[in-house]
Amino acid sequence: MTVCTDSTPPPDDVGMRTVRWTDGGVVLIDQTALPDDERWITCRSVERVAAAIRDLEVRGAPAIGVTAAMGMALAATASAAPTAAGVVADLEVAATRLAATRPTAVNLVWAVDRTLAVARDAVVGGPIAVRDAVVAEACRLADDDVARCRAIGVAGAPLLDGVGDVVTHCNAGGLATVAYGTALGVIRAAADRRPDLHVWVDETRPVLQGGRLTAWELDRAGVACTVIVDGAAPALMAEGRIGAAVVGADRIAANGDVANKIGTYALAVAARHHGVPFYVAAPRSTIDPATPDGVSIEIEERDPGEIRSYRGAAITPAATRTHNPAFDVTPAALVTAIVTDAGVVRPPYGPGLAAACR
Amino acid sequence: MTVCTDSTPPPDDVGMRTVRWTDGGVVLIDQTALPDDERWITCRSVERVAAAIRDLEVRGAPAIGVTAAMGMALAATASAAPTAAGVVADLEVAATRLAATRPTAVNLVWAVDRTLAVARDAVVGGPIAVRDAVVAEACRLADDDVARCRAIGVAGAPLLDGVGDVVTHCNAGGLATVAYGTALGVIRAAADRRPDLHVWVDETRPVLQGGRLTAWELDRAGVACTVIVDGAAPALMAEGRIGAAVVGADRIAANGDVANKIGTYALAVAARHHGVPFYVAAPRSTIDPATPDGVSIEIEERDPGEIRSYRGAAITPAATRTHNPAFDVTPAALVTAIVTDAGVVRPPYGPGLAAACR
Repeated sequence: MTVCTDSTPPPDDVGMRTVRWTDGGVVLIDQTALPDDERWITCRSVERVAAAIRDLEVRGAPAIGVTAAMGMALAATASAAPTAAGVVADLEVAATRLAATRPTAVNLVWAVDRTLAVARDAVVGGPIAVRDAVVAEACRLADDDVARCRAIGVAGAPLLDGVGDVVTHCNAGGLATVAYGTALGVIRAAADRRPDLHVWVDETRPVLQGGRLTAWELDRAGVACTVIVDGAAPALMAEGRIGAAVVGADRIAANGDVANKIGTYALAVAARHHGVPFYVAAPRSTIDPATPDGVSIEIEERDPGEIRSYRGAAITPAATRTHNPAFDVTPAALVTAIVTDAGVVRPPYGPGLAAACR
Repeated sequence: MTVCTDSTPPPDDVGMRTVRWTDGGVVLIDQTALPDDERWITCRSVERVAAAIRDLEVRGAPAIGVTAAMGMALAATASAAPTAAGVVADLEVAATRLAATRPTAVNLVWAVDRTLAVARDAVVGGPIAVRDAVVAEACRLADDDVARCRAIGVAGAPLLDGVGDVVTHCNAGGLATVAYGTALGVIRAAADRRPDLHVWVDETRPVLQGGRLTAWELDRAGVACTVIVDGAAPALMAEGRIGAAVVGADRIAANGDVANKIGTYALAVAARHHGVPFYVAAPRSTIDPATPDGVSIEIEERDPGEIRSYRGAAITPAATRTHNPAFDVTPAALVTAIVTDAGVVRPPYGPGLAAACR
């Protein structure tokens, strides 16, 4: 198996890498076990990678993109095909399997397509060249993700100068990416500029990525934070205790509509009501030019068990009906600015996002 | 011990009584054990009643008012004082203890003051007359609560004619009262008029009164419901799938500002953004003429443990800071109407509420 370079120390401190390619397979921190248990998983097959994505052991649009690319690298190295075309055929099967795990995040399909394209380009070099190219591309995407998060942080941090406390929803941190984070990248970079920064963290039901993951990450990064229930942020806004909201995105449509964790739209509506700026931070791979607007985004409906119980303890009666969309859509009109690795994009988003993606 | 009449069957079906006075003490359904365990507690001392209120074994403003009155009845029957004045002195100690359990609900203080006043009025009859009067008043308050909930239901049900689905937050049902409920009283009475009524139930973090209690109650009452996380209601409103919001109240200020479970304000802001009517249902004992507006309402900050874990399973890192206000304040300007046992009050609330309380 090819050893790649994704373990090269980054140029500055971006925190630990939560997704890694190693000789033994794809190594992930198990996000379902946090915050009380820091457990690392080694995925040795495409099927195991698909299960990790489906079961949220790894989540966050950029992180699942890189993980899926590494799943493709696993498929390439595991392929016993004697020809380059045979390896590509095995990769196409893996691509279909991986793309089916979660429908909303565009990065997943983007990363899988990218590794497939690289494989096809390498066919002239023979099967070993195809394998090496896919592994190298997966590792490159990981490094690239870290660099993009740093760029998002640099671009977005000035937006938080002097605004008071900030609220975030879900986890758009180093756990949702390879390291550093998107929304948390902006927050980390802002905290470097103003050490007084304090973050209100929506716990983010049902999977509690805010309470379990964002609080854990900010604690490790030394950024002061306080966890609140999702219904509490508007009351804090009414009290003048929130100066800005910063969230990530699972998909951004061409017109600037943003699909992100359920509850994001609720926060955006409250921000608008209180005149609080609402920022979205995401790498350009999250922008989908093929999706014209939010209405076109398929919203994943997840298992009722996420609402009905928590770690085995009942929350609702066993037979209670639930509605459990993983995401909601925040219309572009409620978004103050979108912070990308190519800079801050402001309304009107259509031309701005198109320019950023060129 | 005096046997009282609160077990008299009500004139029509209001569901089970969740707070009862019996020869053995005050019998309560343990709301912390629901939905998976229907456990009944018998409180035989004022201290045990105070613990039940503090630990949320009984919660909901009207229910804790009646429970506190029954706590006063326990204090009266337990008093060994040989004189009427001595019984009253023992009751004053009990009143202080009970009033200190939870600061926001006005019904609690209202009910305790009421039983104390009745005791003082009965002093001329001697100690036995004082004891009998307090027990009778506690039982009368229980019956009265049921009648008021029925009246709220009758007054409010027409508001939900033909509006589509309804959303509610927390539990303002038979568990929050003696039976039938306030917001759920309106919903039950509306469902009698239109059996197609479907209710979206906010699970209501942190204590999950919606998921655990409201879903359990509506299931028993045969009203169709679906549990959602608190952040999901605004997205449903954006999809046009919510026609009205109905919630209870822990305290209503003289100007119509409403203190209710944290997250209520978030729902009210979203309702306003989407043009969805927002109704508050509460008995007149919840209206506090002595509280001019929401700013004057003390908001109880509860234990961080409610956010940090659920039934022993960690949600946040152990040391994470939390902000856990039990309630928020919805300004009168966001409230479409207040449904009381004296009818529907509409803005301007100042004169309307004053008239309702006369």
